Amino acid sequence: MEGHKSIIEFVNSPYQIETIYHIPRFDSKVLKLSQKINLCEISVTDLEKVSSLKTPQDVVAQIKIPAWGALGHNELKGKFSLVLDGIQDPGNMGTIIRIADWFGIEQIICSEDTVDVYNPKVVQASMGSLARVKVYYTGLSAFLPLVKLPVFGALLNGNNIYNTDFGNEGLVLLGNEGNGIRLETEKLITSAVTIPRAGKAESLNVAIATALFCSEISRKALK
Amino acid sequence: MEGHKSIIEFVNSPYQIETIYHIPRFDSKVLKLSQKINLCEISVTDLEKVSSLKTPQDVVAQIKIPAWGALGHNELKGKFSLVLDGIQDPGNMGTIIRIADWFGIEQIICSEDTVDVYNPKVVQASMGSLARVKVYYTGLSAFLPLVKLPVFGALLNGNNIYNTDFGNEGLVLLGNEGNGIRLETEKLITSAVTIPRAGKAESLNVAIATALFCSEISRKALK
Repeated sequence: MEGHKSIIEFVNSPYQIETIYHIPRFDSKVLKLSQKINLCEISVTDLEKVSSLKTPQDVVAQIKIPAWGALGHNELKGKFSLVLDGIQDPGNMGTIIRIADWFGIEQIICSEDTVDVYNPKVVQASMGSLARVKVYYTGLSAFLPLVKLPVFGALLNGNNIYNTDFGNEGLVLLGNEGNGIRLETEKLITSAVTIPRAGKAESLNVAIATALFCSEISRKALK
Repeated sequence: MEGHKSIIEFVNSPYQIETIYHIPRFDSKVLKLSQKINLCEISVTDLEKVSSLKTPQDVVAQIKIPAWGALGHNELKGKFSLVLDGIQDPGNMGTIIRIADWFGIEQIICSEDTVDVYNPKVVQASMGSLARVKVYYTGLSAFLPLVKLPVFGALLNGNNIYNTDFGNEGLVLLGNEGNGIRLETEKLITSAVTIPRAGKAESLNVAIATALFCSEISRKALK
């Protein structure tokens, strides 16, 4: 994780920070550390070597990749979670995590071939929201039937999203950037939902579609 | 403009295509040209020179930058338009154009320091939607008072967007990625509007915020 703003989010999260590396001019007070975390001063040259950014920030943290507990019906009932089927673009993935965090969605379940959430570009685009949103990978066609919740799928020929009653719980399923939701996953949708179009654009970006779904499922509660 | 899908959008638009350059293996029939447009065969090496893409497509079009007529109250009344105050990221700008096109918004008015809409990254990210959405540049603090329409500004301390009655016409104002709407423009807002937050993300990306505003202003009509 790079940059003090994002690292602060992870300090106060279920993640375990192994070491924080910083250059001499960095003042570690800005991290507001209350627990004991290894701090290690390194040279600017070394920081540039470990950073994945063109313009590295002054501090990077080595964070342990967590093993979240198993996820099932009990963990998902009574709320909404996102399900991603084959999202490939790291920028989209990071933006989706940030959107989930904005709308208070705490779980994202991904197909095995979805882009790795620990890809540095995803971590960067999520802007610290990854500290609060748990991302799981699993085979969707085996997993979805185990969860006895409505599956709202973003499709082109579904019901108008503005007339859809989402109720109080469920899964919101979004598909790959070019190909959408794959057929075997589509079969598990219980309610096909469409964002109607007033103009002529061929499609909406998947992160934009995710935001519109999150807005609609949260609308009643946020009013 | 690069790639046949986007070029097709511009062939059937108010834009004037000067020449279409393509490599030998490209079949110009896919462009479905009905009017007379200069076609010019070039080598793969030459195409790579003019392309701004890492992996160039087989065809590029040279399109005249248009001078849209003057924009005033009469052109904006009875509908919604977007106003952008200092958007800098080309990807965000292109995505906003695509969102506008999805929701049938035909005009975007930008502050002079907003990223150039003819920046190749903007053109690429707009995915052909630029053919249908007119983008204007002007000094907002002089322009906005001339338009006698409500100005809905995306601010952090405004009215809940889900309880806002947008009526049937107006301008939706969004600000710079880091700094938001600048003070002199903010003074011209007639209705401050906020997207409420259920979770903890510090902010929403400006293209995401634009999509949520477009969705809310179109909601009644799209139901």
